[in-house]
Amino acid sequence: MPRFVTHLEGAIDGDRLSADTLQTLHKDRPIWVRYDLAAVAKSLTKDQLRQRPQTMWRYRELLPYYGEADVVSLGERMSPLLACPRLAGRLRLEQLWIKDESQLPTGSFKSRGMAMAITMAQRFGVKRVALPTAGNAGGAAAAYAARAGLECFVFMPADTPIVNQYECQLAGARTFLVNGLINDCGRIVREGQERMGWFDLSTLKEPYRIEGKKTMGLELAEQFDWQLPDVILYPTGGGTGLIGMWKAFAELQAMGWLAPGKLPRMVAAQSTGCAPIVQAFEAGARFANPFHNAKTVASGIRVPAAIGDFMILDAIRESGGTAIAVEEERLGEWMRLAASLEGILVCPESAACVGALECLVHQGWIRADERIVIFNTGAAQKYVEASRCEIPRLDIQKPLDWERIAAPSDK
Amino acid sequence: MPRFVTHLEGAIDGDRLSADTLQTLHKDRPIWVRYDLAAVAKSLTKDQLRQRPQTMWRYRELLPYYGEADVVSLGERMSPLLACPRLAGRLRLEQLWIKDESQLPTGSFKSRGMAMAITMAQRFGVKRVALPTAGNAGGAAAAYAARAGLECFVFMPADTPIVNQYECQLAGARTFLVNGLINDCGRIVREGQERMGWFDLSTLKEPYRIEGKKTMGLELAEQFDWQLPDVILYPTGGGTGLIGMWKAFAELQAMGWLAPGKLPRMVAAQSTGCAPIVQAFEAGARFANPFHNAKTVASGIRVPAAIGDFMILDAIRESGGTAIAVEEERLGEWMRLAASLEGILVCPESAACVGALECLVHQGWIRADERIVIFNTGAAQKYVEASRCEIPRLDIQKPLDWERIAAPSDK
Repeated sequence: MPRFVTHLEGAIDGDRLSADTLQTLHKDRPIWVRYDLAAVAKSLTKDQLRQRPQTMWRYRELLPYYGEADVVSLGERMSPLLACPRLAGRLRLEQLWIKDESQLPTGSFKSRGMAMAITMAQRFGVKRVALPTAGNAGGAAAAYAARAGLECFVFMPADTPIVNQYECQLAGARTFLVNGLINDCGRIVREGQERMGWFDLSTLKEPYRIEGKKTMGLELAEQFDWQLPDVILYPTGGGTGLIGMWKAFAELQAMGWLAPGKLPRMVAAQSTGCAPIVQAFEAGARFANPFHNAKTVASGIRVPAAIGDFMILDAIRESGGTAIAVEEERLGEWMRLAASLEGILVCPESAACVGALECLVHQGWIRADERIVIFNTGAAQKYVEASRCEIPRLDIQKPLDWERIAAPSDK
Repeated sequence: MPRFVTHLEGAIDGDRLSADTLQTLHKDRPIWVRYDLAAVAKSLTKDQLRQRPQTMWRYRELLPYYGEADVVSLGERMSPLLACPRLAGRLRLEQLWIKDESQLPTGSFKSRGMAMAITMAQRFGVKRVALPTAGNAGGAAAAYAARAGLECFVFMPADTPIVNQYECQLAGARTFLVNGLINDCGRIVREGQERMGWFDLSTLKEPYRIEGKKTMGLELAEQFDWQLPDVILYPTGGGTGLIGMWKAFAELQAMGWLAPGKLPRMVAAQSTGCAPIVQAFEAGARFANPFHNAKTVASGIRVPAAIGDFMILDAIRESGGTAIAVEEERLGEWMRLAASLEGILVCPESAACVGALECLVHQGWIRADERIVIFNTGAAQKYVEASRCEIPRLDIQKPLDWERIAAPSDK
C-alpha cells in the first residue's frame, strides 16, 4: 500500500474498503481514497515541497502511488495560473485568473486523472483498459495506455470532435464511434467488461482518476501561497475535477496548511444544452435526473447522467457555491472574448465558465473585489467544430485588395 | 538595453548594430543578439539557476529582456524531456528521448519565439504586427499579440491545417487565406509593411524569435545536466529552432558551462515533399535554392526558401551533422509509430525526425549506444488532415458485434 494511504471508502455509505486490491464501484457508486493526513503533515513541509520538480507528482504524499518507478508519465507539469487583467476589466472584476490546463499532455486536464489511473491499473496488473468518452478523456487514456504498453478500447459518440477521434486512433487505441451519447458508450464498456477482459476506466468507476484530478486543487493552493481564491468556476460534466479539488482543499485543511478563512465557493458551469447538475441544484436534490436530448458543442460537459452527481452537489453546497447553465448559443462568443482579450484559447466548456462569471457578477453573487479563478480544462484547438467563422481569402493572381485587408472586421 | 546584451550583429557580415532600436534585417539577412558571456558566467551559477521557476524565463541573463514587468507570457514552462525506451528498442537504439514542445502554449514550440518577439516588439512601442505562417507560428503570434493587446495580421496558405486557421481567428487576429505558399504570404506582409504600419514578425526578420527558440537548447543542456546528447534531430522549415539551439550551445560553451566533449551533431529532417536544405547540404552549398512545387502534410516544414538558410547549413556543418529528407508518404506511419509506442503525439514534422533516425541508424551514421534526442515541435492534434483513417462505427440499435470489437485491427 502507498505510504500514507490508510484505506478506500465508499462515497455513498462510508464503508471501509481495502486499498490493496483494484476496486471499481461500491454499491454502484464511486470510492474515495483516504490518507493518514496527520502523518502526511508531520512528514512533509511546505519548504520541502517548494524544492521539488514542478509536476503533479510533487504532491506524492497525497497521491496513491508506490514509487517513482511505477509512475506512467508524459510530463505532467504544474499548469500555469495566468492573471487576466483585460478580461477582468471587461467583466468589471479586479482579480481574475485562468488556470490553463490546456498545457498538459494531450492538451487537457484529463491527463492528470489518466496518469494516475493508468499508473495504478498497471501496478495492479491490468493489461487492457476501456472507456466511454465525450472527447478529451479518450485522447488522454489512449496516450497513457500507449505509454504504459496497455491495450486501450475507446467508445465515443459519433459526433465527438474530430480531433479527439484522431488522437485516440493515432495513439493506437481501438476506437469506435457510437450513434448515441456517452452513457450509451458506457453501457458498451460495462457489457464487454467480462467478455473482453477490460478494466473500466470510466469517470469515477475506479478510485484513482479523482486523485489525479485532485492535484488541480493542490497546485492552486500552492500557487496562491495557501490562501485560496474566493470563487472557482469549473465546467462540469462528469464532475471529477470539481470533486477532486474539493477533496484536495479538505485534505489541506485537515493538514493545517490553508490560511484561515472560508474555502472557495465552487461554481459548476453547464450549458443550457445539458444541465442536469444545475436542475438538481435548483431543485434542492442530492441526485440528478438524466438530462434529455443533451446537445452542446462543449462535448466534455455533454454528460446527461453523472455517477458522482451527489458528490458534485455535496461539494457545491458545502462550499456555499452554485450551479449555473449558460446559453449554448453564446459559447463561441465567450471563447472569442477570452481568447482575443487574453490570448488564452479556452475550450467551449470553459467558455461556459466565462458566461457564468458574467452572469454571477451581473446578479451580484460575485463582488468586484473577489479573487476569481476559471479553469481552462482543455485547448480550444481541439474543437474546430465549435466555430464556423468564414476566413477571408486573398487571390495573389490579382492586385491585393488593401481596403479589405485594412477593414476593421470581415466577420 | 537588457543587462547582458552588448549589441546586435549582422549574421551575413558580422557588422555591429545597436540593440537600442527595433531592428529587422541587415543586408536582407538575419541579425544575432550578442551578450557579454563572461559577465553572465560571473553573475549566474548553476545552483542559482536550479532554484528558479521552471519556465523559459529562468535563463533571463541569456535573453534580451529588460525586466519581469515587460514579459508577455502565457506560461512558457520548460518542456518535458521524455525517455522513449519502446521506440528506442524498435529503432535498435539504447537511449532515446523526445523533448515534447507540444505542451507549450498554443501547443507548439512557436510560443517560445513569439513570447520573446512580442515582448520586445511591445517594449519598442509596436502596436501592430503581421506575419506569414505555415501554421503554428500564426497561432502563437495571434495568442501572444492578444495577450499584449497588439493588433495581429496573419497570412497563411489556403491549405494550412484547419486548426491553425481556427486558432488565429479565435484569438482575434485578422486572418487571411492565400492561394500560394508561405513565401507568397511573406510578400504580402512585406508589401503592406509601410501602408499598414505593420511590424514584420516573419521568421528571422527580427532578432528576437531566435532568442526565444534558443531556450530549447538551454533547457536541453540543463535537463541533461550540462552533458549534451550525441545527436539532435530537428524538423527544419525556417530553421530558427536549429539555429537557436546551436547558438545556445555556443553561448554555454563560451561560459564554460558544458561538460568537455563534442557538441551534438545536428540533424535537419525534411520531407521529400520540401527539402531545400537537404539539397543545399548535399551540394555543399551555403545557400539553398528555392524548392519547387513544395508539398507536404508537415506544414511547418513546407518552407521552400528560408532566409536563414546559411545559418542552418553552417550549424549543421559545424556540428558534424547532416540533413536528410524522408519519404513524404511515410510521415503518417512514423507518427503512429511514436504515438502508439510512447503515447507522445508527435506532429508530422517530427515524424520526419523519426524517419530520419530510422534511416541514419540503418546507414550506421548513428550508433546504437549514442544518446539521441528528437524534438516534437507541436501537437499532432493540430493536424487532423494528416491522417485519414476510417474509424469503425457501432450501431447501438442492433446487437453489438463483439467479434468486430475484439478484432485485432480494423484499419
